[in-house]
Amino acid sequence: MANERVLNVGVLGATGTVGQRFIVLLSSHPYMKIAGLGASERSKDKVYEVATRWKMQERMPDQVKGVVVKGCDPAEFVGCDLVFSGLDASVAGDVETAFLKAGIPVFSNAKNYRMDPKCPLVVPVVNSDHFKLIDEQRKIFDSGKGFVVTNSNCSTSGLVVALKALQDSFGPISKVMVTTMQAISGAGYPGVPSLDILDNIVPLIGGEEPKMEEEVLKILGGVNQNATSFLPLNDIKVSATCNRVPVVDGHTECVSVEFAGEAPSIEKVKEAFESYRCEAQDLGCPSAPDKVIYVATDVDRPQPRLDRDAGKGMAVTIGRIRECPVFHVKFTLLVHNTVLGAAGASILNAELAQKKNYL
Amino acid sequence: MANERVLNVGVLGATGTVGQRFIVLLSSHPYMKIAGLGASERSKDKVYEVATRWKMQERMPDQVKGVVVKGCDPAEFVGCDLVFSGLDASVAGDVETAFLKAGIPVFSNAKNYRMDPKCPLVVPVVNSDHFKLIDEQRKIFDSGKGFVVTNSNCSTSGLVVALKALQDSFGPISKVMVTTMQAISGAGYPGVPSLDILDNIVPLIGGEEPKMEEEVLKILGGVNQNATSFLPLNDIKVSATCNRVPVVDGHTECVSVEFAGEAPSIEKVKEAFESYRCEAQDLGCPSAPDKVIYVATDVDRPQPRLDRDAGKGMAVTIGRIRECPVFHVKFTLLVHNTVLGAAGASILNAELAQKKNYL
Amino acid sequence: MANERVLNVGVLGATGTVGQRFIVLLSSHPYMKIAGLGASERSKDKVYEVATRWKMQERMPDQVKGVVVKGCDPAEFVGCDLVFSGLDASVAGDVETAFLKAGIPVFSNAKNYRMDPKCPLVVPVVNSDHFKLIDEQRKIFDSGKGFVVTNSNCSTSGLVVALKALQDSFGPISKVMVTTMQAISGAGYPGVPSLDILDNIVPLIGGEEPKMEEEVLKILGGVNQNATSFLPLNDIKVSATCNRVPVVDGHTECVSVEFAGEAPSIEKVKEAFESYRCEAQDLGCPSAPDKVIYVATDVDRPQPRLDRDAGKGMAVTIGRIRECPVFHVKFTLLVHNTVLGAAGASILNAELAQKKNYL
Amino acid sequence: MANERVLNVGVLGATGTVGQRFIVLLSSHPYMKIAGLGASERSKDKVYEVATRWKMQERMPDQVKGVVVKGCDPAEFVGCDLVFSGLDASVAGDVETAFLKAGIPVFSNAKNYRMDPKCPLVVPVVNSDHFKLIDEQRKIFDSGKGFVVTNSNCSTSGLVVALKALQDSFGPISKVMVTTMQAISGAGYPGVPSLDILDNIVPLIGGEEPKMEEEVLKILGGVNQNATSFLPLNDIKVSATCNRVPVVDGHTECVSVEFAGEAPSIEKVKEAFESYRCEAQDLGCPSAPDKVIYVATDVDRPQPRLDRDAGKGMAVTIGRIRECPVFHVKFTLLVHNTVLGAAGASILNAELAQKKNYL
Repeated sequence: MANERVLNVGVLGATGTVGQRFIVLLSSHPYMKIAGLGASERSKDKVYEVATRWKMQERMPDQVKGVVVKGCDPAEFVGCDLVFSGLDASVAGDVETAFLKAGIPVFSNAKNYRMDPKCPLVVPVVNSDHFKLIDEQRKIFDSGKGFVVTNSNCSTSGLVVALKALQDSFGPISKVMVTTMQAISGAGYPGVPSLDILDNIVPLIGGEEPKMEEEVLKILGGVNQNATSFLPLNDIKVSATCNRVPVVDGHTECVSVEFAGEAPSIEKVKEAFESYRCEAQDLGCPSAPDKVIYVATDVDRPQPRLDRDAGKGMAVTIGRIRECPVFHVKFTLLVHNTVLGAAGASILNAELAQKKNYL
Repeated sequence: MANERVLNVGVLGATGTVGQRFIVLLSSHPYMKIAGLGASERSKDKVYEVATRWKMQERMPDQVKGVVVKGCDPAEFVGCDLVFSGLDASVAGDVETAFLKAGIPVFSNAKNYRMDPKCPLVVPVVNSDHFKLIDEQRKIFDSGKGFVVTNSNCSTSGLVVALKALQDSFGPISKVMVTTMQAISGAGYPGVPSLDILDNIVPLIGGEEPKMEEEVLKILGGVNQNATSFLPLNDIKVSATCNRVPVVDGHTECVSVEFAGEAPSIEKVKEAFESYRCEAQDLGCPSAPDKVIYVATDVDRPQPRLDRDAGKGMAVTIGRIRECPVFHVKFTLLVHNTVLGAAGASILNAELAQKKNYL
Repeated sequence: MANERVLNVGVLGATGTVGQRFIVLLSSHPYMKIAGLGASERSKDKVYEVATRWKMQERMPDQVKGVVVKGCDPAEFVGCDLVFSGLDASVAGDVETAFLKAGIPVFSNAKNYRMDPKCPLVVPVVNSDHFKLIDEQRKIFDSGKGFVVTNSNCSTSGLVVALKALQDSFGPISKVMVTTMQAISGAGYPGVPSLDILDNIVPLIGGEEPKMEEEVLKILGGVNQNATSFLPLNDIKVSATCNRVPVVDGHTECVSVEFAGEAPSIEKVKEAFESYRCEAQDLGCPSAPDKVIYVATDVDRPQPRLDRDAGKGMAVTIGRIRECPVFHVKFTLLVHNTVLGAAGASILNAELAQKKNYL
Repeated sequence: MANERVLNVGVLGATGTVGQRFIVLLSSHPYMKIAGLGASERSKDKVYEVATRWKMQERMPDQVKGVVVKGCDPAEFVGCDLVFSGLDASVAGDVETAFLKAGIPVFSNAKNYRMDPKCPLVVPVVNSDHFKLIDEQRKIFDSGKGFVVTNSNCSTSGLVVALKALQDSFGPISKVMVTTMQAISGAGYPGVPSLDILDNIVPLIGGEEPKMEEEVLKILGGVNQNATSFLPLNDIKVSATCNRVPVVDGHTECVSVEFAGEAPSIEKVKEAFESYRCEAQDLGCPSAPDKVIYVATDVDRPQPRLDRDAGKGMAVTIGRIRECPVFHVKFTLLVHNTVLGAAGASILNAELAQKKNYL
């Protein structure tokens, strides 16, 4: 890692929960240096420690405590090599466009650009080949060095890791049925009222199901030959049901899969998961997990409290792999929703972008 | 109700959690009178209040506090018109057989007899016509007035209510995919260790998935013409995934359904649920709910804490009824696992048996 | 009860959590009839069912579903014999004053009037003799039939029940140390964010400790001879520490007490609790509990989930009564914070007011 | 650290929850090497990975997976420089005595030896001077190099840190009232049944209160001049009330303190906490925290989920420091019950013993 040049990075939405997770992860990053923190008008010009209700289990890093928070204006982030965006969807669209046009690469968690036909929607351990569209995006937006790469919805991120491993080994998937049990941290702060979730489940997460159902098609799909457009899958049907459960971190997903072709044996499925590798590992990105997928050996795993930190939150744990009486195979997976499902994915995307010379 | 004769009932497994629920429900029953409490050797001959670690939110009824606990021997329950069994599966088989042969009707929560080819497996709001097999059972076992009727697994009970309503209105169902989020009370006491479930989910409940997958076929199936055997469905495929979640009472189930025939509209599905009625209502059984199915009007319901007590725990609440991108329709249902899913079902089964003159 | 005249009652703050609890309790009241629902501008003129995010475990009573919500203006509650106020402290002061002056008796949960030198602060099972000040209050405010009676802070309510029983039996108390573990429902909805309370405790509840420390003095104190002012205790020191814990309903309080005089035996303390009675019982108020204090017989009780519904939430459960190595005696008590600690207290106060001819 | 000689250590009770915590902490220790794992007959001769239901959030270290578990017999630990004991109290007494007599130093979490008049009961950041008794202990037991040092009960450990800092700065303390809210991990596995703690509190932890009340006196007391006996405090009265709450890790304690002398200002109390240092820091023990006490800056801290990992679980966080209306000062503290409150304390005790040349 020592030979990487230092990257000066900004964090937009720095006082929110995704922003706080960015700061925790970046505070020990080998070559990224926090060079600016942006937030809303309410926090602007305040010292970070004062502006923020810190909610991470890790202590606030000393290096950001005294930083004066800026507005989310590209002019204030001129020296930055890139920005990470943990902005709320209500403002992310305009702000990210402004950074893009100002020539500053944006790695975003917001949903606004995800389905944009020229924007890579990248789960870094799955479809880093989608970065190829950056040139086209730059051309369309006439944005110089600027571009926007988004990562997926948190529950999508776990699902596509499993599906990609299966697709790579056994060919096209025709049907996916997934039921999620999602952690409260996915809703930010204050987020889910405790009266809604203590001794309770909320069987709806607004907008989550359509996101999963459409993001999967784009991420698992390809890029056309001259890298000017995406080729989403269209022969796969996905049905998602999303629930909020009283778990702090870690989304659990029960998945049933049917293949277009023949069903592989359960043993082959396990091997496909175990042996799955990604480009970020091969390129030596520091945030890439040692293993992308851990296959649980205990029959009653994965469990969010025990498995969410696998690979420092960048790996997916899969267990209960067995035949499905209706489809071909079913299993349960766990993904850390604020790491691989959010801030960690953005950071690994930025590492990939550097390795691939887009910065 | 005033014209029902008083029934003297025994409770087997009276000190356990299912037994405690029986006692709470029976303590205010209009015509059932607790005439005997049976438990294991450890509790035998002790006063109930002393023998029991009472775990119900309702206070222990005064009428049972001083009762001396008996062993689970039919000779000790001679005056009883029937017994309810909340026994553990490890002992239920032998004990229930002894009562059956001694001529004492048994209404059981245990799994032992459920798939017996001569034993009615009855969810009282679904398939009370299966009582017809009692005569055949009595003949086979030469048991005089004795018989065994079981109720289903707790998670099965909610599912079959929904499926029966759909099947009645729209004809045969071909495929069912169900993912459950089950309450800890389903595991009894001490049951699930808190370290396994606080801020956590356990994605396996031993033996639960096969139970659901096979009980559904029997319950939704019919009885042959001369009432000598059951005719389980065999054209329906069921795939169940069962999870334990940090909820005290109430199983939540996410269900996707495909019909053999054409898909009904969502509006028709709602009507089918709303208008579903059962024989126990028509016969005026006191434990039958006013409505068997409540269709939730709020988009984020059912929720276990808020909906489990619908119909005093004897009704099922269904919400999120919508098209499924893979099957025809999907929805989320909630059932109170210790009432309609356990003790309440047994009691309503006993009421039905009386109305139908099997006692 | 049959001979009580029907009371037409209004509920102010009807859409909030305290208001919802009022509605649940009133829906089965023998002689109170909901005659008007008041809420903020946002809800005004809407049908109650539409205006309200219903969060009670009990279903919304049919009788209120179609009621059009009014503003909190006395002119709109002209036919009411009294109003219950579940208003937020930010608006309660002005609104309650308006009703008072309009001649409409107010039974309030809000803190605004609690420490007013002419306003009775009444925990109905403790100090119903404080109603005597109503005449003086009417005189001061020139309010005709109007008056305001408040009930205490939810955590105060449990504490004073125990202390009153001790004071009645053993004379003045000199020191009280109390540490509370308070349920999330005490903070209303949305109230406590789930990220603050899942797998967590919040060791501060803003303003709660001073409330407990001063309300106790007023409630346990007396009234002067001509009933024109209160005589708060001033020889008792109270130290309160208040924590929020992941419990839905029911405040648990660990209390140590030192008497001015000699320490009674633990046996005598238990007897004092067991035998405690209140005026509301003697007057036959329908909401008065059969027993005011239940002394737990199990060594590990009271527990909020199991004991909060004692006496339909109007009784206090006390356990772990033992000698304190520092003070004289210590014990743990449990009070249902939204029943005896809030709406239930107001309703019983209204019943008392009627029996005592203040309505 | 590089200059410390490698210590070969054994872990007794290695399959239990305390044992698992030892293994996690030791797996990254700079100079301790796990050289043997001991457990009960049930686990003996099995491979560790098979014998253990692993319940830590950290993955099982590779180095122990294949280790064959031994019985808890000194003969099997001959090459070890010391053993850590996470044994259950029911067996710890005999086993630890055997190791002691076999000349193998024991660092124990069990309660058996804690109040032994010749056994140091050491919270390593508080009273490491008590190691002085080791020579006397060796003499009494004729144990060669063998000795037993225990650490305190988990809730005692946090309390004495705060009290020691106060005592050092302001002289003798006369009265302490403490109410704890203790995490479920303190009860081991399976430990607390989930039905007892979800949406609930258990107001009793068997034996915990007397432990706290007597251990404090020994730990805060001194050693006589020729180091042959302890001099427990006897002018301090401690009253402890212990509750189990639905928190995974981290004991919260609400403490009120009265000094024998004059009350210090709140500002001075904060300074005393902030500036507290211990011998383990000065000796450069690798497990000593950078700061022993963190004074929380936010008014609503410490919170278990956010603060338990302060100083990698070896520091205590104190907040809400304020005047007590009854005693002099009160505050709320948080201690990680399985680190500073258990395995971490033992390991730091062993580091201290080495630095002080007792190994």
